[in-house]
Amino acid sequence: MVKPDAPIEVRDVPEPELGEGDVLLDTIYSEVCGTDLHLQHGRLAGVPYPIIPGHVTVGRVRRIAGTVAPVEGPPLREGEIVTFLDVHRTCHSCWYCLVAKASTRCPSRKVYGITYGLADGLTGGWSERMHLKAGTKIIRLPASVPPERMIGGGCGLPTALHAIDRASLRLGDRIAIQGVGPVGLNLVILARLSGAGRVIAIGAPRNRLDAAVAFGADDVIALEATSPEERIARVQELTGGRGADVTIEATGVPGAVREGMRMTRDAGRLVVVGQYTNAGEAAFNPHADLNRKHLEIRGCWGSDYSHFHRAVEILARHGDRVPWERMISRRYGLEEMNEALADVQAGRAIKAVVDSNAAPS
Amino acid sequence: MVKPDAPIEVRDVPEPELGEGDVLLDTIYSEVCGTDLHLQHGRLAGVPYPIIPGHVTVGRVRRIAGTVAPVEGPPLREGEIVTFLDVHRTCHSCWYCLVAKASTRCPSRKVYGITYGLADGLTGGWSERMHLKAGTKIIRLPASVPPERMIGGGCGLPTALHAIDRASLRLGDRIAIQGVGPVGLNLVILARLSGAGRVIAIGAPRNRLDAAVAFGADDVIALEATSPEERIARVQELTGGRGADVTIEATGVPGAVREGMRMTRDAGRLVVVGQYTNAGEAAFNPHADLNRKHLEIRGCWGSDYSHFHRAVEILARHGDRVPWERMISRRYGLEEMNEALADVQAGRAIKAVVDSNAAPS
Amino acid sequence: MVKPDAPIEVRDVPEPELGEGDVLLDTIYSEVCGTDLHLQHGRLAGVPYPIIPGHVTVGRVRRIAGTVAPVEGPPLREGEIVTFLDVHRTCHSCWYCLVAKASTRCPSRKVYGITYGLADGLTGGWSERMHLKAGTKIIRLPASVPPERMIGGGCGLPTALHAIDRASLRLGDRIAIQGVGPVGLNLVILARLSGAGRVIAIGAPRNRLDAAVAFGADDVIALEATSPEERIARVQELTGGRGADVTIEATGVPGAVREGMRMTRDAGRLVVVGQYTNAGEAAFNPHADLNRKHLEIRGCWGSDYSHFHRAVEILARHGDRVPWERMISRRYGLEEMNEALADVQAGRAIKAVVDSNAAPS
Amino acid sequence: MVKPDAPIEVRDVPEPELGEGDVLLDTIYSEVCGTDLHLQHGRLAGVPYPIIPGHVTVGRVRRIAGTVAPVEGPPLREGEIVTFLDVHRTCHSCWYCLVAKASTRCPSRKVYGITYGLADGLTGGWSERMHLKAGTKIIRLPASVPPERMIGGGCGLPTALHAIDRASLRLGDRIAIQGVGPVGLNLVILARLSGAGRVIAIGAPRNRLDAAVAFGADDVIALEATSPEERIARVQELTGGRGADVTIEATGVPGAVREGMRMTRDAGRLVVVGQYTNAGEAAFNPHADLNRKHLEIRGCWGSDYSHFHRAVEILARHGDRVPWERMISRRYGLEEMNEALADVQAGRAIKAVVDSNAAPS
Repeated sequence: MVKPDAPIEVRDVPEPELGEGDVLLDTIYSEVCGTDLHLQHGRLAGVPYPIIPGHVTVGRVRRIAGTVAPVEGPPLREGEIVTFLDVHRTCHSCWYCLVAKASTRCPSRKVYGITYGLADGLTGGWSERMHLKAGTKIIRLPASVPPERMIGGGCGLPTALHAIDRASLRLGDRIAIQGVGPVGLNLVILARLSGAGRVIAIGAPRNRLDAAVAFGADDVIALEATSPEERIARVQELTGGRGADVTIEATGVPGAVREGMRMTRDAGRLVVVGQYTNAGEAAFNPHADLNRKHLEIRGCWGSDYSHFHRAVEILARHGDRVPWERMISRRYGLEEMNEALADVQAGRAIKAVVDSNAAPS
Repeated sequence: MVKPDAPIEVRDVPEPELGEGDVLLDTIYSEVCGTDLHLQHGRLAGVPYPIIPGHVTVGRVRRIAGTVAPVEGPPLREGEIVTFLDVHRTCHSCWYCLVAKASTRCPSRKVYGITYGLADGLTGGWSERMHLKAGTKIIRLPASVPPERMIGGGCGLPTALHAIDRASLRLGDRIAIQGVGPVGLNLVILARLSGAGRVIAIGAPRNRLDAAVAFGADDVIALEATSPEERIARVQELTGGRGADVTIEATGVPGAVREGMRMTRDAGRLVVVGQYTNAGEAAFNPHADLNRKHLEIRGCWGSDYSHFHRAVEILARHGDRVPWERMISRRYGLEEMNEALADVQAGRAIKAVVDSNAAPS
Repeated sequence: MVKPDAPIEVRDVPEPELGEGDVLLDTIYSEVCGTDLHLQHGRLAGVPYPIIPGHVTVGRVRRIAGTVAPVEGPPLREGEIVTFLDVHRTCHSCWYCLVAKASTRCPSRKVYGITYGLADGLTGGWSERMHLKAGTKIIRLPASVPPERMIGGGCGLPTALHAIDRASLRLGDRIAIQGVGPVGLNLVILARLSGAGRVIAIGAPRNRLDAAVAFGADDVIALEATSPEERIARVQELTGGRGADVTIEATGVPGAVREGMRMTRDAGRLVVVGQYTNAGEAAFNPHADLNRKHLEIRGCWGSDYSHFHRAVEILARHGDRVPWERMISRRYGLEEMNEALADVQAGRAIKAVVDSNAAPS
Repeated sequence: MVKPDAPIEVRDVPEPELGEGDVLLDTIYSEVCGTDLHLQHGRLAGVPYPIIPGHVTVGRVRRIAGTVAPVEGPPLREGEIVTFLDVHRTCHSCWYCLVAKASTRCPSRKVYGITYGLADGLTGGWSERMHLKAGTKIIRLPASVPPERMIGGGCGLPTALHAIDRASLRLGDRIAIQGVGPVGLNLVILARLSGAGRVIAIGAPRNRLDAAVAFGADDVIALEATSPEERIARVQELTGGRGADVTIEATGVPGAVREGMRMTRDAGRLVVVGQYTNAGEAAFNPHADLNRKHLEIRGCWGSDYSHFHRAVEILARHGDRVPWERMISRRYGLEEMNEALADVQAGRAIKAVVDSNAAPS
């Protein structure tokens, strides 16, 4: 990705020299997520174009410089299949890390495929090899989690897990999920796994709503056919007239936040996880939508190693009943990435997976 | 108060008949609070005009029908000085009371001086006598709390206590308080009592800012002399460049909510307690003001018996060091209530107290 | 139950006169739970023998005095099938109810079948009719919850739900459950519904461990074949060497509490719900078992209406996949209650259900 | 400290070579705390005798190898007065650090003066110089915090702050503090700063109880003159018959934990912070002391950088009203450390401070 709003180019890059503690992977799969659309359109600040996109990635260990140990288990060996936390260099030394204990706000964080660029080397998953720098948090993929399943969960799964944690869901709570992209669909899955009393998914287009039902939504509300007032009324109707106990916003559309406030019951909770880029302002009524409702709103930024670690455990535990790999609409070779981005943009794909070893289709 | 935007009238009302469990008080003090301005201007829904305003009130027990016990201590006796929770008839039988445990959203609640009207009898404190219906939660005023101090704390104190509880203030946290009315000033007091690391009060006019300093604010920011951007910058400057750990909004101005979001640090908390009536909409940026900040926003509606009970205990414990009675700007007789409302409206009075026994000044 | 350690007698009682708001039920099912064994052996203080045991009960409305509304839905009608919260007269007026918000410690509580006695009328479920006094919290049984399923969940389900709430289980947490009686088995069910990462059930005898597996336990540890050290070692082995993230004690055996501390990981949580009667003292090591572990221990007493309400919702939602009715080992007529108690005592029955309409077997 | 139960020896040690990021201090003050008595008697496992004791320490920067930045503020300069977190090498890479977020249970932690020994160099504060290894978390002492005040707070202050955080104290809560050593006295201070409704300190000997009163305790209960039952009864008497809302144990005596359970009200909280070493077992009654009480018990182990950082802020904010330096009973030169230990052991000193520059007294 040379610069915003320009076509993706496939380039040859020399194999990197590894420093002590570095690991070189042969990539197996990476993904196209909503962030990559933001990157393509230049909506994120501080991106060092040109970059190799692709943050959550699965690969096979090709070379290890020295001894590298994952958080759990013995040191890595060549040939093992691994994934890794895309966020690197959380400093554990600043006020946000140590005093506020809000490490997702650490200013030193670097993200593979987003804030590392080509100048930093093979730092994105849309490539045949990937260079993991010393200190990267690597997880050995359990045998029960095939690479397809891991990339099917993708970066949406740890993000959704962070949001579910922050929702303080109580067994039996009725939950409304705004958005049925990869984060929204993972929220449907996790809400069901958490024992939600009713899961209502709201979004578009139809193929994603169908996926929401397949992944366990009790009810879906089609965005296209309804006004905000109708959606709010429908959620109330499905929740005994009160509104959802918990709502999680995962849309990226500013106006969805107020709609989320209004479809949540009094004294309920709204988690906002979808406003990843600046898409403008939104209005709300501080009296009716917030104060009188005794509402609690929790912004949720990024995810940390704990979410990634637990996400892999959840894939291992529930993979036999939850077909995460079905989120994958199609696999794309490196030459097809412009098409992949266009398919995701148009909503034709739920998830486009990058398979750098694929023969062009 | 005959109807919205009409002058207050002084009327004679026959002495009520007491049912079993009722109590008749000789009122000592009641107060004029911001809610009474809202009532005067018809900004609250469901008010059964004509009403006798006056919710938080201190009185002397004149008559008791049967045996009436407060939550703590022996049954009431005639002549004792008492106060009572203005909220009556919380049902403890509905879904909100029993399942959500959000009793301030109980639909059965009635509030003396607000949702009880003249048709319900002597149900407001702006009168010589007051009729407390059976089941009203009455507190015997401790000997160490003179009536002046109780009414100095007024309804602002339990409201502020609820908001402070909801702020989850940690010892040493830096707090910004938006608004220096009775709720805001009580927040300054409670923040100091809670061990806040720095207390920044923001508001107007000057006499209230002076009171904020007298009650313990470390810094004040004058609303009139500053733009929102300047206030946000000033809070950041006073908090090591990060913003307040906790902000509490107590203004009633819709735009203050966004300003509060922006003056709070990343991963901090904003409590919204001041948006008591519908004063219109406000804009915010869901990405920059909420999601990326990992901010938590907590609406805070009303207060329940626990806040009132603990407020009286706090007055008893700290009254020798915190002169709550100095919030009282002037005492007004019943004939002076139009003037009292005008003084509060204009900000000339911090708190106007109703003394139905006062000779006209 | 005439007095402790005496045989149950079947007696004729005159049909009660109903006061305003009272309801008379034809009982359908009641149950024999561990509490009834305690009652039989006189282990509970303040029990007004003779009593009619039977707290959680399902019945059909026979007569209604006036209009009686459940928490949700329209007023009751004759012929409807209902259940009710066995705890009555929580006062919502005392310091524990209002200030501490710990209503299960309200001193005014009365419990049908336990602290109401025969002198109070038909106040237990081991009878053909039952007299629900005004203010009893009644729930209309949803059509999707047959009476068998409701009594299969029994009083163990709301108790387990309270304990699960108090465990603050996080999606994927590994949980150890000590005890496989009705509370322990319901904990297995609820832990699975909550998305536990691994559910380890510990207890005896074998038929209950088999039930634990049928209800979703991943692993069981037989009490009889193991020492405490072996059980602790086994839990560690099943949890990556660290111990359970969360342990819930539901045994009634004092020594189980320390064992629970030791099988929980550092910085984990232990909920103690099984120590319902005074069975003596236990030893522990405050340094090694509590302080150095940074352990959190949460006692959990009784349950309130919210747990009962949500328990019925959980039965309605998950009954098609979780066969609560399979907890029922056998139905007993009123003449067979001595046998029922003996079967529960001996562990032959997981749950003995009282069917006052049954022909003697 | 050559080995357990042997006299302290003063030895000459060669000045260390500094690696990149290391700092050499001229020590100003260190302290003798209860841990040092445990060290002297060999009660802690894994101590690499011989060691230089002295963990919380204040010093002046003598030399810096390279550039060393504290968590806040510009890089250190020679001559500045600093203190530092005695815990070093928390790894931020293990399951406890990253997934459980319980970094005080990180197995990689090393503590200056405790688990670093003489073989690791000048790693304790009972010396003229101290060698801080790269990565040590250093705090520049604010100008408003003289070294006397910092060492007066000592290691008891961050420990007490951690315990107060864990107590979830609510404004107005009544608190019982078991123990009046440095941790207990700091708890008295912090409970007052947090707005406790009543602070009851329990301990011995008399000089420490007097200090508790001077630091803000409302009531003291002398350990020597009372039985456990009398102390429990006295706490109940001082708390309206219910027991303390919150109790914090800071004694080191196993039996105090049960006493703490019993002096806490139903549905209250007990924090256990004083059981730092294994002093044997204790008995309790799981039914009466824990389950029926609906009690919450929270073990509290160690402290992390956040507690240390905030402790320094608290000293800066409240030092003009709270004379932490008065905890210092006497200053001892290095040659007097055997006497210092004996004075602390006998309770003659509240706090013995090590002043390596002092002329022998």
